[in-house]
Amino acid sequence: MITKQQVLEFLNNYDLENITIATVCSHSSLQIFDGARKEGFRTLGICVGKPPKFYEAFPKAKPDEYLVVESYEDIMNKAEELRQKNTIIIPHGSFVAYLGTENFAKMAVPTFGNRAVLEWESDRDKEREWLLGAGIHMPGKIDDPHDINGPVMVKYDGAKGGKGFFVAKTFEEFDELVDHTQKYTIQEFITGTRYYLHYFYSPIRNEGYTLSEGSLELLSMDRRVESNADEIFRLGSPRELIEAGIRPTYVVTGNVPLVARESLLPLIFSLGERVVEESLGLFGGMIGAFCLETVFTDSLEIKVFEISARIVAGTNLYVSGSPYADLMQENLSTGRRMAQEIKIAAQTNQLDKIIS
Amino acid sequence: MITKQQVLEFLNNYDLENITIATVCSHSSLQIFDGARKEGFRTLGICVGKPPKFYEAFPKAKPDEYLVVESYEDIMNKAEELRQKNTIIIPHGSFVAYLGTENFAKMAVPTFGNRAVLEWESDRDKEREWLLGAGIHMPGKIDDPHDINGPVMVKYDGAKGGKGFFVAKTFEEFDELVDHTQKYTIQEFITGTRYYLHYFYSPIRNEGYTLSEGSLELLSMDRRVESNADEIFRLGSPRELIEAGIRPTYVVTGNVPLVARESLLPLIFSLGERVVEESLGLFGGMIGAFCLETVFTDSLEIKVFEISARIVAGTNLYVSGSPYADLMQENLSTGRRMAQEIKIAAQTNQLDKIIS
Amino acid sequence: MITKQQVLEFLNNYDLENITIATVCSHSSLQIFDGARKEGFRTLGICVGKPPKFYEAFPKAKPDEYLVVESYEDIMNKAEELRQKNTIIIPHGSFVAYLGTENFAKMAVPTFGNRAVLEWESDRDKEREWLLGAGIHMPGKIDDPHDINGPVMVKYDGAKGGKGFFVAKTFEEFDELVDHTQKYTIQEFITGTRYYLHYFYSPIRNEGYTLSEGSLELLSMDRRVESNADEIFRLGSPRELIEAGIRPTYVVTGNVPLVARESLLPLIFSLGERVVEESLGLFGGMIGAFCLETVFTDSLEIKVFEISARIVAGTNLYVSGSPYADLMQENLSTGRRMAQEIKIAAQTNQLDKIIS
Repeated sequence: MITKQQVLEFLNNYDLENITIATVCSHSSLQIFDGARKEGFRTLGICVGKPPKFYEAFPKAKPDEYLVVESYEDIMNKAEELRQKNTIIIPHGSFVAYLGTENFAKMAVPTFGNRAVLEWESDRDKEREWLLGAGIHMPGKIDDPHDINGPVMVKYDGAKGGKGFFVAKTFEEFDELVDHTQKYTIQEFITGTRYYLHYFYSPIRNEGYTLSEGSLELLSMDRRVESNADEIFRLGSPRELIEAGIRPTYVVTGNVPLVARESLLPLIFSLGERVVEESLGLFGGMIGAFCLETVFTDSLEIKVFEISARIVAGTNLYVSGSPYADLMQENLSTGRRMAQEIKIAAQTNQLDKIIS
Repeated sequence: MITKQQVLEFLNNYDLENITIATVCSHSSLQIFDGARKEGFRTLGICVGKPPKFYEAFPKAKPDEYLVVESYEDIMNKAEELRQKNTIIIPHGSFVAYLGTENFAKMAVPTFGNRAVLEWESDRDKEREWLLGAGIHMPGKIDDPHDINGPVMVKYDGAKGGKGFFVAKTFEEFDELVDHTQKYTIQEFITGTRYYLHYFYSPIRNEGYTLSEGSLELLSMDRRVESNADEIFRLGSPRELIEAGIRPTYVVTGNVPLVARESLLPLIFSLGERVVEESLGLFGGMIGAFCLETVFTDSLEIKVFEISARIVAGTNLYVSGSPYADLMQENLSTGRRMAQEIKIAAQTNQLDKIIS
Repeated sequence: MITKQQVLEFLNNYDLENITIATVCSHSSLQIFDGARKEGFRTLGICVGKPPKFYEAFPKAKPDEYLVVESYEDIMNKAEELRQKNTIIIPHGSFVAYLGTENFAKMAVPTFGNRAVLEWESDRDKEREWLLGAGIHMPGKIDDPHDINGPVMVKYDGAKGGKGFFVAKTFEEFDELVDHTQKYTIQEFITGTRYYLHYFYSPIRNEGYTLSEGSLELLSMDRRVESNADEIFRLGSPRELIEAGIRPTYVVTGNVPLVARESLLPLIFSLGERVVEESLGLFGGMIGAFCLETVFTDSLEIKVFEISARIVAGTNLYVSGSPYADLMQENLSTGRRMAQEIKIAAQTNQLDKIIS
C-alpha cells in the first residue's frame, strides 16, 4: 500500500492551480466530470480500448481528455503520466472493483478520500465490527442455517449486484435454494422500505452539522431499482415462483429518487455521525461521500445493512441538486461537492486532510 | 376556540413589514423556512428541549431563531411572545398532532389557513360528509363486517401513520385479523395506484384557475412510501405472510415523486374545485395548501380516500419546484407559495382572508 | 397521404419568422407549449368544445390562442386556417390516436417528424420487422398458445393503455383467462424492471453522438405507473387474485422518474442508434423524439417490447430538465428540444429535413 507520506510528496510537486480530476468512465463519472468542471477543474476520463462514444452526447460531462488503457490493471502503469498532469483521482465503486482493491491501495496517484477505509468495507466481518462499534443497528447475522426461525436474506460473498441472493423463511427453504458451492452470509430479513442515504463528511469544514472533527452533510437519498425483484411479483408470489422454477434476483439496474419523513432526519444524521466518529478512531476517518444502505421499519427504526465508503450511483439522480442539497447550495451534486472539497482544500493548504 | 375577531385584533397591532413565519421543527419545516426566507420573511423554529442539530446542515432552511419549549403544550404559553415578534404560524400535520386539535384551535397567535377546517377533517364522519357533499367519489364504507363481500381496508381510528391497518377479502379474514380493542373503520379496497395531489387554494387571487371566490393551483403530487407494505411482497403473498404470522403495515416513511396522465388534469382540478367550493359553504373555506389522497383506478376514475387540509410532507420532494409548479413560477415550493400568499395579503391588506 | 412535396410547398409560403407551434391539448401539451414559448414561438392549442380550464392554472404553458373544434376529425377542416398562422404541428400519442392514423397522414399542415413512421409503428408485425431488423432484442412471440411453456404476457391488439392484458404461465392459465372475442398477441414475459428511454434524433445536428446522418441524444427516462398492477399485490398474489375473481390491469396513470446504471449507457445509445439507422433505410428516418419501452434483465440485457415514434408522456416529469438533459443544456425538456430543432432548422433553411 502506498503511504500517505508518499502521496503528500507527490502533491508537493503538483501545480495546485492546475489540478486535473480523473476517474474511470463508468458508474458516476458523468456526474463527477460535470461537477469538477463546474468547480473549474480540468477533467480526464480513464477508459479501456477507446473513449466511450456516449460521452459525446453529454457535452457538459465529457472529460477534457481521455487516458486510454489496454486493461484496467494497465492504469497502474500510468501513475507517472497522471501525476504529471497534476491528477487527483476521484474513485467510485466501479473504479475500485475494476482495478481490484489491492491495486487501488498501491496506486501511486493522489486520491480523494482515505484509502485505509478499503480493508474495513471490503470484508463483511470488519464492516460489521465497524458499524456495530458505532452503535448502528444491523440486521442480525445467522451463523448456522439450522437457526433460521424467521425471514432471512442469503447473500453470496463475491456476488456482483446481488446476483443469486434469495429470501427464505425456514431452514427447509434455505436448503432447497442455497448454492453450497459459494460462500454465503445469512442475514435477518428486515421488513420495511429501503433507503440509500447519501452523506458527505468534510474533515476541513468547521460549520454546519459539526462533528468532533469536520462536519457532516446529507446530500440526497435514493432507492435502488432491483431486477428482477422489483417487478417479478406480477408473475407470482415468492412461493408460486419457486414452484414454477423462477427465482427473484437483486441486480441493481438503476435508481429512483425519494425523500424521508422529516422527523427521521435527526436519526439519519446521528447514524452518519456515529459511523464517521467510529471511523476516525479505527482508521483515521472515512472522508468525503459515503452511503448507508438501510431499511426503514414500520416502527421508524433504521437498520443499516451495508456501507459504501465513496460516491454511490444513486447520486446520479441529482446532477443539478436534490431536495436536500438544494437547502445547502444551488445546483449541487455529490460530484460537484467532492470537487468543491478538493478546491477548498487546495486553496487553504489542507489537501493532506482529504487525500491519500 | 379563538375567534377570527380576536386574531384580527392581534394583527392590528402587528408590524406587517416585519412578519415572522413560525412553525414546529418537523414534518415540512425545512421547506417552510426555506420558502419563507425566499419571500424575505424572518423565520422562527419551535422545538422541544433544544434546537435540532440537523438544521445546521441546511443553511438555507435553518430558522433565524428558535423558540425552545419544554413540551408541545408549552407552546400555548408562548402566544404573547410570538405575537410580539409579529408571528404568523404556518401549521403542518405534525404541528396540529403534537399540540392537539383543541389546543391548536385555541392558540392565540395568527395562523395561516382556516382553523374551522379542523372539526371537519379530524372526524372521519364529518370528513365523509364534506367530500360526498362535494360530489367526490370515495371508497364505500362497510358498517357491519358481515357485509364484507370483496376486498376491504380496515383502519383504526387513532392509528398514527397507518399502523395496524390491514386488508381482508372476506369476513373470515377480517375476523382473524381485527383487533377488537380498537375502534375501526372498514373501507372498500380500491384497486388502482395511489396519488397524493398537492393543491393550493388562494382566496385572494383573481386570475388563473378561478373559483367562485379566489383560485386553485396544483403544485405537485407524490406517492407515499409505506413500510413495510411497499416491499414485504418480496417475502410472500398476503396469504403466505399471514400463514407465517407476518403482517403488512402502512407506516409512511417518505415519498417518491410522480406525475399523472395529462388527460386526468381536468378531473384532478375538478376534484379540488368541488372540495373547495363545498368548504366555502360548510365553514367559510379551506385556505392554502391541501392534499387529496387518492387512488387512480384502471378505468381512470379517481377515488378520494382522505383529505389533508394543510401542507403534506410529500411536498418535501419539491423544494425547488415540481413538474407542475415549474409551469407557474420558477423555484416554487408549497412552502414558498404559502409565504408568498402571506406576503401578497399583507401588502394588499387582505390578511383577514387567509389568517385565522 | 399528403406528400412531402406538398408540405414543402406550404412551407414556401410560410413567414418563418412567425411560426406557430400547435398541438392538441392533452398528453404532453403543457410541456410542448412551455418548451415552444421558451424558444420564442407563438403557441396554439387545439381543443374540442372549449378550451380546457386547467390551462389557466399553468401560465407558462397556456397557449397563446386556442383553435376550438367540434370533434377531433374537425381538425381536418382547419388545415388552411392553421397554415395561415404559419403553423407547425408537434404531434403526440393522443394527437395521432384522437385524429386516427389515416386522417393524421392526410393532414394538410406541416408536421414535426416523419409521418412515414406511422405505418411502421401502428402495425405490430411491421414494428417487429423494424426492430428485429435493427438487431434489437425483443420478447419472443408465441403464435400458438399451446406452445406456452413459461411466463407470457397476453396483449389485445386494439387495447388502450394495456386494458385487459394478462400474464399466464401455462396454456391452461392462458385458456382460463383469455377473451377469445379479441385479437391477441402472446409475448414472452421478460422478468426484469421496466425502463422507458426517451431519445431524440436530430437529422440536422452534426456534433455530439453522431450517426450516419445527424446525431442522437438521450434526454431522460421514466417508469410508467400502471393501474392496478403496481399495487394490487397488496391484496393477493396473481393466483390468489384469480381465485378471488380479481384481475391485474395495466392502464398507465402516470410516471415516476429514474436513472439507469451508467455502465448501461453504451448499450442504451447503441439501441437508439440501431433503431434510427434501420429507420433511415426503411422509410427515410424517424425524426425527433422517440421512446424505447424496455425491460432491463438481471443479466443487464435490455429487451425492447415496443417503440413510440414521438414524444411520450413520461417526459412530462422533466419540464425543467432531467439528470441526463442537464448534462447537455440547462432547463431542457423534450418539448423544448423539439421547438429548438424547429428553430434551428428554420434559421438554417433545413426545415425539409425535419418536417413532413
